[in-house]
Amino acid sequence: MKFSSNPVRGTRDILPSEMRLRDEVEGKILEMYRSHGFHRIETPAIESLSLLLGSEGGENLKMIYKILKRGAKLNLAAENLKENDICDMGLRYDLTLPLSRFFSNHQNDLEMPFKAIQVDNVFRAERPQKGRFRSFKQCDIDILGDPTENAEIELISTTAKALSAIGFKGFKIRINDRRILSAMILAAGFNETQINGVCITLDKLDKVGFDGVKEEMLKKEYAPESVEIFLTSIESMNLENLTALPIAEEVKDALTRVVKTIQATSKDAYVIEFDPTLVRGMGYYTGLIFEASYGPYGYSIAGGGRYDEMIGRFAKTSVPAVGFSIGFERIIGILMEEALQTEATEKRIALIYPNDTDWTEIFPVADALRVDATVSCILAKKKLGKQINQLKSLGYTHFMVFGRDNETAEL
Amino acid sequence: MKFSSNPVRGTRDILPSEMRLRDEVEGKILEMYRSHGFHRIETPAIESLSLLLGSEGGENLKMIYKILKRGAKLNLAAENLKENDICDMGLRYDLTLPLSRFFSNHQNDLEMPFKAIQVDNVFRAERPQKGRFRSFKQCDIDILGDPTENAEIELISTTAKALSAIGFKGFKIRINDRRILSAMILAAGFNETQINGVCITLDKLDKVGFDGVKEEMLKKEYAPESVEIFLTSIESMNLENLTALPIAEEVKDALTRVVKTIQATSKDAYVIEFDPTLVRGMGYYTGLIFEASYGPYGYSIAGGGRYDEMIGRFAKTSVPAVGFSIGFERIIGILMEEALQTEATEKRIALIYPNDTDWTEIFPVADALRVDATVSCILAKKKLGKQINQLKSLGYTHFMVFGRDNETAEL
Repeated sequence: MKFSSNPVRGTRDILPSEMRLRDEVEGKILEMYRSHGFHRIETPAIESLSLLLGSEGGENLKMIYKILKRGAKLNLAAENLKENDICDMGLRYDLTLPLSRFFSNHQNDLEMPFKAIQVDNVFRAERPQKGRFRSFKQCDIDILGDPTENAEIELISTTAKALSAIGFKGFKIRINDRRILSAMILAAGFNETQINGVCITLDKLDKVGFDGVKEEMLKKEYAPESVEIFLTSIESMNLENLTALPIAEEVKDALTRVVKTIQATSKDAYVIEFDPTLVRGMGYYTGLIFEASYGPYGYSIAGGGRYDEMIGRFAKTSVPAVGFSIGFERIIGILMEEALQTEATEKRIALIYPNDTDWTEIFPVADALRVDATVSCILAKKKLGKQINQLKSLGYTHFMVFGRDNETAEL
Repeated sequence: MKFSSNPVRGTRDILPSEMRLRDEVEGKILEMYRSHGFHRIETPAIESLSLLLGSEGGENLKMIYKILKRGAKLNLAAENLKENDICDMGLRYDLTLPLSRFFSNHQNDLEMPFKAIQVDNVFRAERPQKGRFRSFKQCDIDILGDPTENAEIELISTTAKALSAIGFKGFKIRINDRRILSAMILAAGFNETQINGVCITLDKLDKVGFDGVKEEMLKKEYAPESVEIFLTSIESMNLENLTALPIAEEVKDALTRVVKTIQATSKDAYVIEFDPTLVRGMGYYTGLIFEASYGPYGYSIAGGGRYDEMIGRFAKTSVPAVGFSIGFERIIGILMEEALQTEATEKRIALIYPNDTDWTEIFPVADALRVDATVSCILAKKKLGKQINQLKSLGYTHFMVFGRDNETAEL
């Protein structure tokens, strides 16, 4: 029987040249995170299905890969089978829920506040489309246990430095607060139960513009004067007239302090601005939310926010938490497209040996060259000139013919 | 609803201190592999179920995690439901099968022979037991497209150097050839159909000894004189009397050349020896097989062999292939137990700041210190002396109190 050699639909294989870039980028991001006192952890890709389904993952819950029960636990002969009767686990759809579980499991063994790094693959059964994969890497930092906006400042600053370190310049970070958004919605005359619906429509602003948002809100039969007041106030809202909003001073102060502190320390490498229209989809955010975008790309390259309630679902006490996640696949896509990343000037030597060479003689030579280079031992072909040209096209920078040359020569 | 904070049964969370060690070890292994001209690739953790079930994975096939079909493809109302009707994918149980699929998919875009690195998690629904996990990391190198034993020499030598680089000394590599094993079994009077059964029993030698193997073979009602001849010949077999065996000279020569070449280049850092009793379980091996073991541990820390037929299951032509896989969880377990890995002497600074400090002033100070250290900005507690002692126990090596000290002090 012959098998298809394609990876399963919606996933992909990663070839050596992209893998080199990915490893280099991941290494630089990790180095930046670590130098700021964050610690990497790892959780399994598989989690309990009830945990995944009981989370506030919004649309992601529909995209969970479910894993069949095994052995005696599986009864396929039962009547009225439901998916959740015959499955007990699923693949994680993000790294935030596993982190919350991890934290409540190991709370007593962790430095507090706990500053976590997670770089790992997550899985979503999305409809396949360009640039969207069913298995993809996320790159998160989170601070657990710090109720102050110091946590937001540290996450935003560290993530921005990581983005700068891998070649991004002049990106923009937009910031808002879920509580400010709610206050503006209520101030316009909507009621509590309408907040979520208003947010869902507002979240489409990037795609449909203010007119499109207005149209949809009127279609939803919200009071036209509330829609008008809300859209006017949100367009004119900024850090200065924020003071008029009926909301706790500390909420306004925190937002203002984050923006001012980041502005003062960004050294013009990137921009931060208050954006009262920023919504972010996840249901679990409770306070400040933020997103980074770059150049003409119509999507965010990083996003995050405060989710103070999630850990309380495991632990007895609620624990304040904030996270910022880099969309690893997206930044790799942009880096490859724009060639922002300068090609590594690695020395790659092809040590070409004739067929009858004794390998015990080649090895010490290869090892000596490995002090400052990558060395491949390669069997000589009949047409050496042609072979050397091929090696050059494969990325080798130097060659040496064993037994003939005593030194490597540039290709 | 409260959820359990434990990871799913048979899996585990990895805490910061182990994660540091894992990242360091993985980094050193990758560096060694890369310096020898190997290229890292990545494949998805999910593969088609028919591919996984159609592979020669032996016992591993029973341990595949199966993923439920989604949407319209799933019909739970059908009669006589079978697992494989309602599942279309599974989690990979090793990295060799995905590599074979990858290679046949991308053959034309790869340097030949293709020297691959894979470091990734695999999944097996094993019965949970000490040191065995359902999700664990493997660390493989493979050479595809080289029919000569140069591939084996390169894999063994590179893997041995990687093991040395992470602190293992005096480990032993045992090597055998499937074809030699078969020839010895036939020469003792068994027939072709008995080869597999004899191998399965011989594979238990480590656990039950020669007497136990003999007992089981007699229970299987093999001819007693064949059992006697086989066990006697296998006990006395070595590279010198190998010549008497009725098998192609090139098979004997290849084994001898691998042993002699590795012996000559190992610089006594490790040992290689021909072991005619080595079986290795996987059904797909076709030639040389090898295993590394260390000290008193009753299990191998790395294993591999030649599997020349597997890629032919995808591609039209068969492609010679050899692999060597480091059992990453096992080596991490030993390194932690024996503390072979010297503690990293990283400089970790706690930059302690009073509550009212302006962060725009802390940041430049922290960044300046990050040139050669990891720096965490930490809020001052009331009892500074006690806090400093706690920081020391958490692994900080230096501290600085912002606004009071101008330099870091050792803890």
